[in-house]
Amino acid sequence: MIVEVLVVGDEVLRGAVADTNSGDVARALQPLGHAVVRVTQVGDVDEAIVTAAAAAVTRARVLIVSGGLGPTPDDRTKEALAVLFGDTLELDATTLEDIRQRFARRGMTMAAANQKQALLPRSGSKIPNAVGSAPGVHWRRPGCDVFLLPGVPDELREMLQSYVVPQVRGIEAATPPRLAVFRTVGRAESDVAQSLQPVMSASASLRWSFYPGREGLDVQVLGGVADTGFDSVCAAVRATLGECIYTEEPGVPLAEIVRRLCVERGQTLAVAESCTGGLLGGRITEPAGSSAYFRGGFVTYDDAMKRDWLGVPADMLAKHGAVSAEVASAMAEGARERAKSTFALAITGVAGPGGGTADKPVGLVLLALAAPDGTWTRRVQLGARREWNRVYSSLLALDMLRRHAQQLPIGDKR
Amino acid sequence: MIVEVLVVGDEVLRGAVADTNSGDVARALQPLGHAVVRVTQVGDVDEAIVTAAAAAVTRARVLIVSGGLGPTPDDRTKEALAVLFGDTLELDATTLEDIRQRFARRGMTMAAANQKQALLPRSGSKIPNAVGSAPGVHWRRPGCDVFLLPGVPDELREMLQSYVVPQVRGIEAATPPRLAVFRTVGRAESDVAQSLQPVMSASASLRWSFYPGREGLDVQVLGGVADTGFDSVCAAVRATLGECIYTEEPGVPLAEIVRRLCVERGQTLAVAESCTGGLLGGRITEPAGSSAYFRGGFVTYDDAMKRDWLGVPADMLAKHGAVSAEVASAMAEGARERAKSTFALAITGVAGPGGGTADKPVGLVLLALAAPDGTWTRRVQLGARREWNRVYSSLLALDMLRRHAQQLPIGDKR
Repeated sequence: MIVEVLVVGDEVLRGAVADTNSGDVARALQPLGHAVVRVTQVGDVDEAIVTAAAAAVTRARVLIVSGGLGPTPDDRTKEALAVLFGDTLELDATTLEDIRQRFARRGMTMAAANQKQALLPRSGSKIPNAVGSAPGVHWRRPGCDVFLLPGVPDELREMLQSYVVPQVRGIEAATPPRLAVFRTVGRAESDVAQSLQPVMSASASLRWSFYPGREGLDVQVLGGVADTGFDSVCAAVRATLGECIYTEEPGVPLAEIVRRLCVERGQTLAVAESCTGGLLGGRITEPAGSSAYFRGGFVTYDDAMKRDWLGVPADMLAKHGAVSAEVASAMAEGARERAKSTFALAITGVAGPGGGTADKPVGLVLLALAAPDGTWTRRVQLGARREWNRVYSSLLALDMLRRHAQQLPIGDKR
Repeated sequence: MIVEVLVVGDEVLRGAVADTNSGDVARALQPLGHAVVRVTQVGDVDEAIVTAAAAAVTRARVLIVSGGLGPTPDDRTKEALAVLFGDTLELDATTLEDIRQRFARRGMTMAAANQKQALLPRSGSKIPNAVGSAPGVHWRRPGCDVFLLPGVPDELREMLQSYVVPQVRGIEAATPPRLAVFRTVGRAESDVAQSLQPVMSASASLRWSFYPGREGLDVQVLGGVADTGFDSVCAAVRATLGECIYTEEPGVPLAEIVRRLCVERGQTLAVAESCTGGLLGGRITEPAGSSAYFRGGFVTYDDAMKRDWLGVPADMLAKHGAVSAEVASAMAEGARERAKSTFALAITGVAGPGGGTADKPVGLVLLALAAPDGTWTRRVQLGARREWNRVYSSLLALDMLRRHAQQLPIGDKR
C-alpha cells in the first residue's frame, strides 16, 4: 500500500521551520507495517496544493496532508482540496460552537477569523481535534483516502493516533515489522556504530539506524516477520552496549526513567545549575508526576550566588575557579543540604562562545552527584555549540543519578 | 525561475531524521531573490529517485538534489541520476587520491567502499567538497541545472555557499524580495490576524504569513521590488500591533531583547520558578552574554521550598494556594531580595495534566514581576498541553520585564 505525505506551508519551504510532521506520520504508521514512500512540500498557494495533491492521489492509497487549517487568509489547504475534489465548504454549527466554547473557557471571545475553521466540506468527514481549534477532514476518494490534518505538531500527533491510525488499520492490515529501539546516553554515534559492527555484519537483512538527539543516541533495529533471528540480535545489542542503554521504550525520556527509579524508592532530588541556567530542572519536570520526587533547585549563574545560596566557599571559588570538580561537588552538596533531599545534581561549565581559556576551554563541563553514600564528579569535554553543550550536559548530569540507582560506575568518588 | 529540491534518504522518510537540508537551500537562495517552490523526499530506491528527478527537471530551472553520496551500497543517488541522464560513471583518479589522503591525514586507511565516492559522471562537473569525502556533481541539462550534493548538513551548507550560490547567480540575477518580520508576544494568532485585516486587504499584492512558536507569533510580510507601498504597509503594521511587537530582527529571541534592555541600563535579574521548573532561567541564559545581567534563580517546585528558600509565608500558601497572585508576588519579591537584583520574575501555575480543580484549572498560570518601583502580577489561562503551558508561560513572564523597561502596561500593580 502506497502512503504519501503532502506538507503545505510557506514557512517550511522558506526554511523558517523544519518540517517534523512528515516524520510523525511515518513513525505513527510504522507499527502498522506501512511506510511513507514520498513526501512533497509546497507553499500556501492554491495551484501548487492542487497540482501536488492531484498527482499524489493517483499514486497513493493513503494521502496525509498537513498544514493550512489555521484561521488566517494564508491558510488555503482545505479550500484548495475542496476545489480539487469538486466539493463545497459549509459552515458546521457544532464545530463553530466548539471553537466558541474553546475561547470562552479561556475568558476570550472568538475572533471572526476563526469562523473559517468551522467550514467543512460536504463530502468529507470531520476529524475531531481535541487539542486545538481546527478540525481535520477525511475524504474517502475512489482508490485513495485523504486525511487533512493541522500543521501544529501537537494537534497533528494527537489526531494521527486517535483517528488516522485506526482508519488506516481498517484500510489494510499489513503485518507490522519487528522494531527494537535502544536509547543510549554517554557514547558517540561513531563509537556505538563501531562496537555494533560485528552484530550488524551478521544480520544483514535487518535495517539499522542511529538517531542522535537531545535524549541521547537511539539505536533502531527494524526487521521483517521472516527475520527469525531478531530476538538474538537484540540480545547481542544489549550485551554489546550494556550500561549505556537506559531504556528500550521508544520516546521515553531519561527524566522519566530517573523519575520512576526515584519514586519507586521514595527518594527525592534537588539541583544546582550554573551554565545550564535551569535546563536540568526543566528536563526533570518535563514528565508529568515529577513533583512526586523533585523538590527544586538553585540556578547560581553568578558566582556570588554559588557562595550565598549554596555555601560554596569563596576561597574555593578563587582557588579552583567556578568550573572545577571542587565547586561542582560543593554546589551539589549545598543543594542537597538545603533541599533536604536524597540526591542533588550540579552542573558548572563553559557553555561558550566566550569564556574559554587554555586550561578551561569552551565545552568543558563539570558534573556532580551528591548522595547519602558520597559525592561523585565527572569532567566532560563537549564542543563549540553553546546550546548543545547546555542541553547535552543536562542529560549527562541526569544520567549520573540513573547510574547510581542501577549501581553502575558514576564518575570519580570524592 | 523555478527552484526545486529533491531530498533522498530512507532515514528522512522513516521519520528518523528531520530534513534540514531543504531549509538550508531555501535560506541560501533567498538573498538571490529565488524561492524554492517544491521539495520532494524519496527513499534510497533507484526507481523512486529517477521518477521524482525526471518530473522535477521538466518543471524546474534549478534542481538541487541532496543525499545518497555515501560509501555504502544503500547510497544510490549518483547512480540513479546517471541512468536518468544517459550518463556513465568513471573512476576519477584525482578524486580517489583526495579521498585517500583525507583518511591518511587522520592516520586511517581508506576503506574499499569509499572508492565508490570517486566515481564521477562523464557529462557532469565535479563540485569540490572541502568538508567531507564525497564530491558533488553539477549537470548542465537543457533547461535545467541539476546540483547533486551530499546529505551531510555541514558539507551541503559549505558547497551551497562555495559553489551553488555563485552558479545560480550566473543563471539568473533576480532582485531580492522585500521582507519584514514582526515578532510579537501575548496575542493569539487569530486575534492578530483580525486586527491586521484592514491592512492586509489594502495590500493584496504582498504575502502575509503568521508563524506561532516558542518565541511568540511572527508576522511576516513579503513583497516584490514593485511593491512601492511596502514601507507604508510596515508602518501600518507597527501602528496596529504596537506594543506586542518586541523586535523586527528575524530570529532574535525575546530573551536577547530583554538582555540588551537590562545590560544597557546596568540592571540585573533573578527568577523564581515553580511549574516551569527552570525553563525561564534556561530561556534567559540561551543568548551568549546573559551572565552580564542574570544573577540566578530558585526552582521551588515543592511548596516547602517556596517557604524555606523564598520566604513565602506558610499561612499565605495555606490560605491562597501555591497558584495565586499572592504567592507569585511573594516568590518574585523573595527572589529579588535574595539575589539583590534590580528585578525578579516569578511563575507558578498548574501545568497539567493533573492537579487542576474547578477554581484553578489546568493551564492557569500566575506571573509576577518585582521591581524597584513595585510588584506586578498577571493571571493567564492557557490550555491543556503541559509542555506548551510551561514554554509559553516562561515567554509571557519575560515579557513583563520588557514591558517594564518600555513603560508599557505590565499587569495588576499590587
